[in-house]
Amino acid sequence: MSGERAPIVVMKFGGTSVGDVSRIQHVADIVAEHRRRLPDVGVIVVLSAMAGETNKLVALAKSCVERPNPREMDVLLASGEQITIALLAMRLIEAGISAKSLLAQQAQIATNSEHTNALIESIDADQLSALVSQGIVPVVAGFQGVDERGDITTLGRGGSDITAVAIAAAVKAQTCFIYTDVPGVFSTDPRTCKNAKLIERVCHEEMLEMASLGAKVLHTRSVYFAMRYEVPLVVLSTFEGPFIPGKNGTWIVAEEELMEKPIVTGVTYRTDEARIVVEGMSADIGKMSRLFSELSRKNIFIDMISQESIDSGAVNLSLTVPDENSLTALETMQALGPELGASGVKIDRDIAKVSVVGIGMRYHTGVAARVFEALARERIGVTMINTSEIKMSVLVPRKYCEVAVRVLHDEFTDFQLTTGEER
Amino acid sequence: MSGERAPIVVMKFGGTSVGDVSRIQHVADIVAEHRRRLPDVGVIVVLSAMAGETNKLVALAKSCVERPNPREMDVLLASGEQITIALLAMRLIEAGISAKSLLAQQAQIATNSEHTNALIESIDADQLSALVSQGIVPVVAGFQGVDERGDITTLGRGGSDITAVAIAAAVKAQTCFIYTDVPGVFSTDPRTCKNAKLIERVCHEEMLEMASLGAKVLHTRSVYFAMRYEVPLVVLSTFEGPFIPGKNGTWIVAEEELMEKPIVTGVTYRTDEARIVVEGMSADIGKMSRLFSELSRKNIFIDMISQESIDSGAVNLSLTVPDENSLTALETMQALGPELGASGVKIDRDIAKVSVVGIGMRYHTGVAARVFEALARERIGVTMINTSEIKMSVLVPRKYCEVAVRVLHDEFTDFQLTTGEER
Repeated sequence: MSGERAPIVVMKFGGTSVGDVSRIQHVADIVAEHRRRLPDVGVIVVLSAMAGETNKLVALAKSCVERPNPREMDVLLASGEQITIALLAMRLIEAGISAKSLLAQQAQIATNSEHTNALIESIDADQLSALVSQGIVPVVAGFQGVDERGDITTLGRGGSDITAVAIAAAVKAQTCFIYTDVPGVFSTDPRTCKNAKLIERVCHEEMLEMASLGAKVLHTRSVYFAMRYEVPLVVLSTFEGPFIPGKNGTWIVAEEELMEKPIVTGVTYRTDEARIVVEGMSADIGKMSRLFSELSRKNIFIDMISQESIDSGAVNLSLTVPDENSLTALETMQALGPELGASGVKIDRDIAKVSVVGIGMRYHTGVAARVFEALARERIGVTMINTSEIKMSVLVPRKYCEVAVRVLHDEFTDFQLTTGEER
Repeated sequence: MSGERAPIVVMKFGGTSVGDVSRIQHVADIVAEHRRRLPDVGVIVVLSAMAGETNKLVALAKSCVERPNPREMDVLLASGEQITIALLAMRLIEAGISAKSLLAQQAQIATNSEHTNALIESIDADQLSALVSQGIVPVVAGFQGVDERGDITTLGRGGSDITAVAIAAAVKAQTCFIYTDVPGVFSTDPRTCKNAKLIERVCHEEMLEMASLGAKVLHTRSVYFAMRYEVPLVVLSTFEGPFIPGKNGTWIVAEEELMEKPIVTGVTYRTDEARIVVEGMSADIGKMSRLFSELSRKNIFIDMISQESIDSGAVNLSLTVPDENSLTALETMQALGPELGASGVKIDRDIAKVSVVGIGMRYHTGVAARVFEALARERIGVTMINTSEIKMSVLVPRKYCEVAVRVLHDEFTDFQLTTGEER
């Protein structure tokens, strides 16, 4: 793949990286440094709005109207990146680097018309490549697009990352650097576990699991994008200088590019879910689907599901939902209770989901055994289990969350290696 | 002319009129009220950025770089109106009025590429008219345009007024309302003279003189524009409710539309100039032009000029320049002194220029006499005089400025009327 790539890198800087003037100057220094070290490699910059700016604009809209019109909301929100790209471009130009800010309609980042949550449909790669080949650094507004009517759209959460990955895919960039306020992806939350270590390389599948399981560093949408379009992605910190593997930065690569495949790459957790149990409901598939369609009608996202049969064709159905929707979910199921023939509905909000993730699981058995042994040593009971090809999640009482994370991290921290097919 | 006009009005609201959320809501009320009272008349709104916002952005740029790149400066500044148009459009929509915000590139306000001081070349009137005929209120970003490269430009001082007048001209609007924070144009500065009265109607030529002489209410560029494209203009206050001639609002009309032509419509003054006298310089025209070309080379704007011959083909040359450039001008002339054969160069910064303006002067003599008599009664000496067809300016010591304004205003306050040709 690398062979076909253009001598271009994309650098995306998040809101905290451009949070004030001095930080914007620091970003300019990073770009300048890269141009100096690798003069033959073009740079395309993608920026977010200053940290907090988007929230400020949302609050402004809310103080003005109850239900802001989505089209106008996007016009409002898009002003945030407009400020940062102009400031950075000025700074680069003053530093003697020719640069040019580009708004979404100028970079022709075409999206559908799903205001506040639009999807990118195409990007004018030729224009960007042309600027780069003229020695110009395009400074592109992240998070925003333009639809076929010429209306401004925004891409929703993680939008600027998606802009960066989409541009990297469009121009066939060598690498897409996602500069943020953490050094990269850790084997677990450093605040929870002092043994947490920076992961040098993680594959897309692992990153997807870890992102969706609560590693906040990168939004799943951009990981999917990077995987689908084979964009080499690096997550690193703006504040720890240039990219130094193992010290600053985590590569997110295709599985086949992983030399080593640890059984467990990381341990993640989330405490923002609640568990609801419908007791003794009918096992009838019709009733089941009735329940799930009712929940989806209320836009309640369901994470884990398990059912245990009890006597006479009745089951206890357990599922986890976002805590913020848990009471709605509870009421919904209580209302349905009779119709489902349930004997009762219970909720437990003091839960935590702890997960071990690793591409190596594909090639190794016995992970479940080690997970249970480790938890048993600490007398931590497990109420639900969920597994995929490359991860295993357990539901534990919230008060044991941190202990569970630590013991599981220590259990697998030797990060036993399996040798992948060498290339 | 009126016959050909479309049933559309343009309403422009300045920075103080959209200074915060409650004021934006008030603006929405004014638009709603107009739609209710005159449902058959379409409304196009033009907005400035929130008061102070543009200065804030300029300061931000200055804190980031020494010399902000003009193209990027315009990208930065244009974000200000983007916020206000989105908020007002939201507000109108929530009030049940279909509205749509339009940025410069969406309204296709085409300008040249003079960044930070661009000139409007064309506007897509058809698009705006189409929206209006669909019952939609276009809410257009003032002050900004887009050049043929698709780069964002801004129009410089008074830019939003110019956008409004240009749009009114393009769609052949019945009226262009310039909503600001004063009730209109006064016969003189109310802070200086308690007898100052709101002028109901003033013609373009008078307004031009008064604007350039220091009546801050409207920028000369937009008056020129209104005159050139015959746009009926009304200046009024956002905070005094709807347009009520004589109570709130001043019509700016073509001279032939003035029923009555007062000799003096207004008395204005400015205190931001300095007077420089080159004494005993050669009357040789070559030396003169040498001096003026040198000043223009330094971009020093010259206002009043007078010369008095003294003995032997030498003259005392007096001129007034903006006080901020006066020291540069002084040094320039001192440096040129020998070459000009001047015996000395003096500067006087304690001056004020007081002017009486009135279209009626065209038809009346004796204005100068009355001016001098009035000033003489107060023992106010005049150091320079400048006259045009419809105005007379005198230079007086700054400490007498307010007295001079008052006596001249009182002298002409009977506003003797000459009957214009009736229609």
